[in-house]
Amino acid sequence: MDTWQSGRLVELDEDECWELLASRVVGRVAYDDGSGPVVLPLNYQAVDGRIRVRTAPHSVLGLRVRDRRVAFEVDDVDEFRSSGWSVLVRGRASIVDVDLHGRAEGPRTWVSGNRSLVLEIDADEVTGRRLMGS
Amino acid sequence: MDTWQSGRLVELDEDECWELLASRVVGRVAYDDGSGPVVLPLNYQAVDGRIRVRTAPHSVLGLRVRDRRVAFEVDDVDEFRSSGWSVLVRGRASIVDVDLHGRAEGPRTWVSGNRSLVLEIDADEVTGRRLMGS
Repeated sequence: MDTWQSGRLVELDEDECWELLASRVVGRVAYDDGSGPVVLPLNYQAVDGRIRVRTAPHSVLGLRVRDRRVAFEVDDVDEFRSSGWSVLVRGRASIVDVDLHGRAEGPRTWVSGNRSLVLEIDADEVTGRRLMGS
Repeated sequence: MDTWQSGRLVELDEDECWELLASRVVGRVAYDDGSGPVVLPLNYQAVDGRIRVRTAPHSVLGLRVRDRRVAFEVDDVDEFRSSGWSVLVRGRASIVDVDLHGRAEGPRTWVSGNRSLVLEIDADEVTGRRLMGS
């Protein structure tokens, strides 16, 4: 079947993208820090068309992304089969909570320390692709 | 030992960052396509302080990144141990070759089709971090 041809890149529909987003706990946020793009991995939660992350209150991420367009990416790579998938979410980021008591909805973070600033990316574009392996 | 405390984030030195970059074949490039940041995974090669990738001659990536600052990220995540590492390369991208005959130095690409445009990111900032797991 041609669809499974090795090296072929197939677009995913939006439902499949959200299923894949819900299946992981670490993704990568990209934003502009004033001197170009930056990419950093962090824990996230995908709920109802939005991506939630937590960061430190005075982090560059917290200071820079407010009301700006950012990108959020999740992927899975199989080096043995030269295959994988990726999902890209684009949208505006905003601060939804300063969660001093850990009560707000949001991801559990692996990094210790104060991650009380809860950010949300409101997805206005969700695209994904799957690379067929051998 | 405090260094191995679970949830602790440790900065990597530049040599270690280049060793980790050399250990992988897929990373993620982030660039601005005119309406905000985009992140896409692709094959790469890390050589002598530079990152090489291949793309299609008329791709958005090829058209947009020329002589602009981009970011390139590689990471490894261990969901079981809630740990991992990531390396971030920042620098200006340029076209080094239009490799119609596949003779230029550069990564082997998993995606089939014409990937004759060889781009290089000249790293002016390389940072990395390791998150200690449980």
